[in-house]
Formats: sequence, structure tokens, C-alpha cells
Amino acid sequence: MNIKIVEVGPRDGLQNEKIFVPTEQKLAFIDKLLAAGLKHIEVTSFVSPKWVPQMADHHEVMAGIQNKLGYFSALVPNIKGLENALAASTKSIAVFAAASETFSQKNINQSIDQSLAQFKEIITQAKLSNLSIRGYVSCVLGCPYEGDIALKEVEKVARELFNAGCNEISLGDTIGVGTPKKAVAMLNAVAQSVPIENLAVHFHDTYGQALANIYACVQKGIRIIDASCAGLGGCPYAKGASGNVATEEVVYMLEGLGFHTGVSLPQLIEAGNSITQYLNIANRSKVANAMAVQ
Amino acid sequence: MNIKIVEVGPRDGLQNEKIFVPTEQKLAFIDKLLAAGLKHIEVTSFVSPKWVPQMADHHEVMAGIQNKLGYFSALVPNIKGLENALAASTKSIAVFAAASETFSQKNINQSIDQSLAQFKEIITQAKLSNLSIRGYVSCVLGCPYEGDIALKEVEKVARELFNAGCNEISLGDTIGVGTPKKAVAMLNAVAQSVPIENLAVHFHDTYGQALANIYACVQKGIRIIDASCAGLGGCPYAKGASGNVATEEVVYMLEGLGFHTGVSLPQLIEAGNSITQYLNIANRSKVANAMAVQ
Repeated sequence: MNIKIVEVGPRDGLQNEKIFVPTEQKLAFIDKLLAAGLKHIEVTSFVSPKWVPQMADHHEVMAGIQNKLGYFSALVPNIKGLENALAASTKSIAVFAAASETFSQKNINQSIDQSLAQFKEIITQAKLSNLSIRGYVSCVLGCPYEGDIALKEVEKVARELFNAGCNEISLGDTIGVGTPKKAVAMLNAVAQSVPIENLAVHFHDTYGQALANIYACVQKGIRIIDASCAGLGGCPYAKGASGNVATEEVVYMLEGLGFHTGVSLPQLIEAGNSITQYLNIANRSKVANAMAVQ
Repeated sequence: MNIKIVEVGPRDGLQNEKIFVPTEQKLAFIDKLLAAGLKHIEVTSFVSPKWVPQMADHHEVMAGIQNKLGYFSALVPNIKGLENALAASTKSIAVFAAASETFSQKNINQSIDQSLAQFKEIITQAKLSNLSIRGYVSCVLGCPYEGDIALKEVEKVARELFNAGCNEISLGDTIGVGTPKKAVAMLNAVAQSVPIENLAVHFHDTYGQALANIYACVQKGIRIIDASCAGLGGCPYAKGASGNVATEEVVYMLEGLGFHTGVSLPQLIEAGNSITQYLNIANRSKVANAMAVQ
């Protein structure tokens, strides 16, 4: 059975790295991810370089991937970002809403409803250009400010994004606090409004729970998993703690469960080793570390 | 619902540490684990100090815990070890068999059948002294030499240890290669011969799969989980890779699933920080690292 992995390393993974990664290094990283068999890759973000300097080369990255074979998406925070994304021939965009009112206010200075209104405008415009659209919902299992988030809030944001035209909704445990039972309860709530085949899960491994959560969600029918090569991407709320779940661990587990990911683990590990060596940081994937010594 | 955690940090966790941990430090660590609410602790091993110098103070450790409240066990590799354990007033022992013929030969220089014959003698003797006995089965999901291990081999070793008189059988993924589907298949095979309430699972996190495997096994009815505070304990087959699953991650997940572990996470983290600071190594628990920065 096939399962889709959405690789977020080049965007979510790199965006908080302080040292600017030159465009050619980013493209080399993307090439290695493609060579490993990953097909869906989030490559950049059309944010202002004042906010996220690491993504300042979004136009160059998009130009660099135009002739590569794959499905590439870019984050778009506002209408200006969409205009830039369209100018750069982006085919697939992602918008980023929060299920937590406080997180939404602090992160993008908008209420949830304000952000949804803006995203609906972006989605409408993007549809006119035949873009495919992914909607992220953050804080689905907890918020750094509010703690628990009501399931109906998560369901509402997911539903509104989906009904506005998103093709895929990615449910993010932004601070990695979830456990399998909560994850499944959240999934069941959202799946009442959004078909499960349009749902993705995006788990952070801050508390080491990501893989157990992914397993639980896959058991419930989820077939789209977000992950980051080498576990790239820190969580700003937990210094020293890990962020995104490593794609290597996800591939290892899913193949063990009998799914076909289409990914070559040795080549994926090579991609992760290459970028982490460039960044001079540890490769956070346990699979990569274990297989390195065999 | 209650669930039993068997803390193996003081034995399995420390045994490969090169720097000898003085007895008083070991006892202080055990005190902190008890204070955190852990009740079942494997504290030492009655092996020859020539093999495992870190466990040379088994008599002193056993003497030191005599007046503490808890269930303490010690590993016993042979009849000589049992005699020493009895002389030290040990109330609970553990024996260690392999489901892999090659691993058994290389690890203890005996065939599986030879080791089982010896363990049966130990178990018979121990029963005469009213000891409770735990039987470990290693390599249940793979062997560093043989790769896959037939389920019937795992079932056979578990059954023979149980029928010989072991109160509890702990199924160990020694090299951490298992994934949930394989773990459940193995469990189903063993549960045909040993009641599930007498089975424990012992997962290593070498490939990051431990918590997903534990979740899958708990879903199947397992109620005894082995874990090691701070993720102490390396795997000798994968340098730099992690070994035992961290007790902190297990407690965090199980409490999230609605189980009652009886363990205080902040006090457990304090125990792990204390021993890892003494050893001058990183605390491998993601929960400990995440909660440290809150």
C-alpha cells in the first residue's frame, strides 16, 4: 500500500537555522531528497526576508527547481506572498493557520477568524491560477500559551480551510506534546468534517512521541505524513529539544508496517548527513546514526 | 488502569559505562528513582567483575537496598551468580536467554538449549528459596548476526523459561530494529504459550521505534514495560546510537493514554539529570530536555 510523505526539511527544517544556507546548497539538498525517492517537498516560504532571512532566496529556489521532477510547494503567509509565489511560477502553496487563539495572535498578530478570512482570499486567488493548496493547522494537540485546545476549535479551522478550497489539511502538533490517544481523538473530530484522505499529520518529536502518534494515526487511516530529513528544524519553545520527526524514522517504520514509501533509506541518510555536515550540527535521526555504524 | 514499569537503569543502563560509579552514587540514584514513584527496579548483576567491572559491587548494592521499600531484582548468569545473589539476600532474580542461536553462542558461549538447561537449574534452585524470577529473552525482533529470528524460536524460549518457573518473561528487542507490526506478530506468537499478563516488553530505541512499539503492544494488552531513566544504556552494536527507551518518554505516553504509572515525571527527570551529570553524559530523554527549558 502506498503512503505519501511530505518532506518539509528544506522549509520548516531550515527556516530557523541562523547561518544562511546558500541557494545552491538548498538545491543540492533538494536534489538528494529527490534522488532518495521523495516526491513531495516543501521548498521555501514567500515571507518577508525581514521575518525569516533564511527564506530570502525563495525566488531563486523556485527558479532552481522548475526543471526538476517532483511536487514542490511553498509557504505563503499573505496576498503579497501569493503574488510573489505566482511570479516565481509556484504550482503549489501552503497557508498556515492556528487552532489556538493566543498562538494566532502572537504568531501572526491576527485572530483565528481574521487569519481565516485572509486565507480564504489567498485560496480564492490561488484557485484562479490552478494552484494546489495545503492548509496547515498548528497547535492541534496543545498550545504553548493556552495548553489544551478544544477539539471543536481544531475541527473548525480544518473545516473552514478545507471548505475554502484547500486540497490537503496538515494537522500539526507544533510543540510535540501529544500522545496517541489524544491524537486519535483529534483525528476523529476533524475527520467528521474533512475526508481522511485529505488529511495529513505533522508531528514534532519534542517529547519523543511523534512516531507513536504517527503509528496511531496510520492505524486510523491517515496516508499522508509530514517529516523532516535528519530531524531538521528546532522548536522555538523548547531550546535543545528536538523538533520535526525525522523522515528516516518515519520511512523505517512505515516500510516495517508494509507500506510502500518509494524512499531509499541509504540515500535519504546521505541527504541528511550532507546537509547536517554543511550546517555543522548533529544528525538527529536515530536511524541515520544507527545505520552509520553498521 | 495501572501499568507496571520495570526500571532497568541501575543495571542495564549503567553496566556499559566505563567509569565505575561508586556504590553510594548507585544507591543515591536508586533512592531518587524510588522517590519518583518507581517500585520495580533492577539494581545489579551477579556477574564476575572480570566481565562487567561496573557491577563488581553487587553485594554492597544489595546490602544498601535491604531497608528500602520496593521490588529489587538482580541479574544472575549462572549457578555461582545465584549463590552470590542468595548470600546477598536477593529476593528477585533475572536470567537472560537469547532467541538467536548465534547471539547465544557469541554472548554466553552456549547454545540456546544449553543455556535453557542451565537456567532451568537456576530457576529450580531459586524457587526453593522462594525467589521471584524474571526471564529475559533477547533478540526477539532481530539479531545482529542472524537478522530476522523465527517467531517459533522466540515462542519456544519464552515458553520454556515460563514453564520452568519464571514469573515474568521480558521480551527484548536488543538491537532496536523492530517496528509495531512485527512487534505485535511476535507478541501474538508468544502469547499463545505465555499468558499476556506475565509478559513484559523491553524495547531499545536504536532506530527511534521503541515508543511506537510499546504503544502497539499496550494496545494488545501488555501491562509491564521495561525502561531506563534518562535512556541510560548504550547498544554495543551501534556506537553513538541510543539504547534503552527512556523511562520519561514511557511515563509521558502511558499517562497520556490514561494509565496510572504512579511516577512523578519531575522527580524522575531529577533522577536522570542527577546520574547523567555525575557520568558527564547527555540526558537522552527528550521529555527531560523539553521540560528542562519550560
